[in-house]
Amino acid sequence: MHQALRPPPQAPIDEAVAAHVERALTDYLASRHADMAEAAPSFGSAVASLSGFVLGGGKRIRPTFAWWGWRGSGGSGDGPDARAVLRGVSALELIQACALVHDDLMDASAMRRGKPTVHVEFAARHREQGWLGEPDRFGAAAAILLGDLALAWADDMFATSGLDAGRLAAALPPWQAMRAEMLAGQYLDVLTQAKGDETEATALSVARMKTAAYTVERPLHLGAALAGAPAPTVAALREFGADIGLAFQLRDDLLGMYGDTAETGKPAGDDLREGKRTLLMSIGMAADPVKAELLRSALGDDDLTEQTLSDVRQVLVEVGAVAEVERRIDALTEAALAALLRADLAAPADRVLADLAVAAGRRTR
Amino acid sequence: MHQALRPPPQAPIDEAVAAHVERALTDYLASRHADMAEAAPSFGSAVASLSGFVLGGGKRIRPTFAWWGWRGSGGSGDGPDARAVLRGVSALELIQACALVHDDLMDASAMRRGKPTVHVEFAARHREQGWLGEPDRFGAAAAILLGDLALAWADDMFATSGLDAGRLAAALPPWQAMRAEMLAGQYLDVLTQAKGDETEATALSVARMKTAAYTVERPLHLGAALAGAPAPTVAALREFGADIGLAFQLRDDLLGMYGDTAETGKPAGDDLREGKRTLLMSIGMAADPVKAELLRSALGDDDLTEQTLSDVRQVLVEVGAVAEVERRIDALTEAALAALLRADLAAPADRVLADLAVAAGRRTR
Repeated sequence: MHQALRPPPQAPIDEAVAAHVERALTDYLASRHADMAEAAPSFGSAVASLSGFVLGGGKRIRPTFAWWGWRGSGGSGDGPDARAVLRGVSALELIQACALVHDDLMDASAMRRGKPTVHVEFAARHREQGWLGEPDRFGAAAAILLGDLALAWADDMFATSGLDAGRLAAALPPWQAMRAEMLAGQYLDVLTQAKGDETEATALSVARMKTAAYTVERPLHLGAALAGAPAPTVAALREFGADIGLAFQLRDDLLGMYGDTAETGKPAGDDLREGKRTLLMSIGMAADPVKAELLRSALGDDDLTEQTLSDVRQVLVEVGAVAEVERRIDALTEAALAALLRADLAAPADRVLADLAVAAGRRTR
Repeated sequence: MHQALRPPPQAPIDEAVAAHVERALTDYLASRHADMAEAAPSFGSAVASLSGFVLGGGKRIRPTFAWWGWRGSGGSGDGPDARAVLRGVSALELIQACALVHDDLMDASAMRRGKPTVHVEFAARHREQGWLGEPDRFGAAAAILLGDLALAWADDMFATSGLDAGRLAAALPPWQAMRAEMLAGQYLDVLTQAKGDETEATALSVARMKTAAYTVERPLHLGAALAGAPAPTVAALREFGADIGLAFQLRDDLLGMYGDTAETGKPAGDDLREGKRTLLMSIGMAADPVKAELLRSALGDDDLTEQTLSDVRQVLVEVGAVAEVERRIDALTEAALAALLRADLAAPADRVLADLAVAAGRRTR
């Protein structure tokens, strides 16, 4: 599958961004892995698991938005600068690897991309080998350390991408904000679950930080900053990104509840089981005080049955929450497309980003 | 206590490195905290805990070695470059904050620097507030995310220290190697405990990576690289650092077993309870097959009694392990001082590093 994703070296980046990102990551990880395997062979085999995780799927959505932010702001699509930018934006996938590996551990998720999560994989390794101590604790330690390594390597890959000092300096503000916002969003998410805060305002602010800013707005900002875009372009692009990012998260809420596991790679109802106060659930609970009780009791239910999941799905439709979320996705997409026009981007980025905007709200995985 | 550590602005950095590092960290964290508190107030209060942790103690040993690596390689002790270098090397304390916060979580340690560890503090907060879900899981999530934030901020602080592009580029190899080696060392440590590997060779390789490289050798390398030191100087400094770092770890092994909790801030016997295969224990177990049984059975004993701890202490003395470790500390210090002479550093760094070398092996906390 990964072989198939690799384009021939001469294929323009514009025509296969995800495939080029995949190759940049493959090359980077191979070189770091070789160093590690030599310095510390036992760690080398753990690093191989991290590489497998990074290269084992993912939509490469953050590098893709960053690339088109660069292209739309006048950055060139080929030449040496383009290669450096490609490597720089590919590093976003390493931040995301840290976020996912640590998030799966915090949520005690068992599956990701259709495979065991990192902490589960290492706990299984411990169990199979009959090692000392608790397998789960070993799995947790491995996931913490490999997530840390991914985060450190994200900075390393960005710093050694070949971008000149001027571009690197211009990119620092979005780069720094993005990592902090991702972590702030994750913390707010955990805190919201702990507090049982089911207000829409809170769900919105978690989604804005954890997904909208981190997944779309800041990657676009990063690409634009690398190209030295003027402030009005950056502002319009960020507005576009914030709306699309929120639409992306709303679609994620729906997929988490109604998605096909074969496509999403995650068991349906996972958000519910983990007690996530998604915007979908907030809207559902606010819509009907009586039916809200069923939703509330299912939230965070470790032993969620198929029947309860099915009841929750039905209630969310009945009280109009699903229709409301769909309506918002449409409205956000429309507002985003208006902001995109104001950004007045260079072709073909204007068209590609419009397509990505529509796709983010309509995807099935 | 921290107020007391802050020097007047005109005090030369050379005369109070740790105090200057403390102030650089205070300023940096205050500025990042202000941004966060505005963007996400609930995260702001978590970030305040991280700041408290970073500023709440620590010997600032890594920035200190890095500073003297810079000075010894001809870097200036005042002027704008010196300030940028000071900020750059202070960022090492943020890497260390990540290492400690995550390490304490992995080891389930309850105390650090005489205070509750971060995961314990946040679990207590959860318990006090009567929030939903498990307090320990909330504490773990907070520790994972705040450790990640410290690691991301380490790179941010280094990148925005004011160092020019040439110096930053020269510093990248040790900077990158250091973070990877720290994580590799931690993983090897966890793996060694899981495998119950009690060989001296393994204990040595964990100590070399986790402490020697990360704590002394690479910080010195970083300082020398920032100053553009020639290869022979870098090589001699790294040799010095590797020996001193190992001596530092051997002293740590002894302090973990015989240290005064009031000075170390950690309960005595913690290494033993956690099942750490230290070099001290490896030497002890290899020295006497019969008495090794007692040592082996105490390793990883969660319910370690005062009596068992006292027996272990006595056995380690009786079989000569303590004397052997002391002998090695002396030999390493001697070899390090010889390497230091070969490095032929500028004054006063030559003298200061010699003093630090001796102190690393003799410290009581």
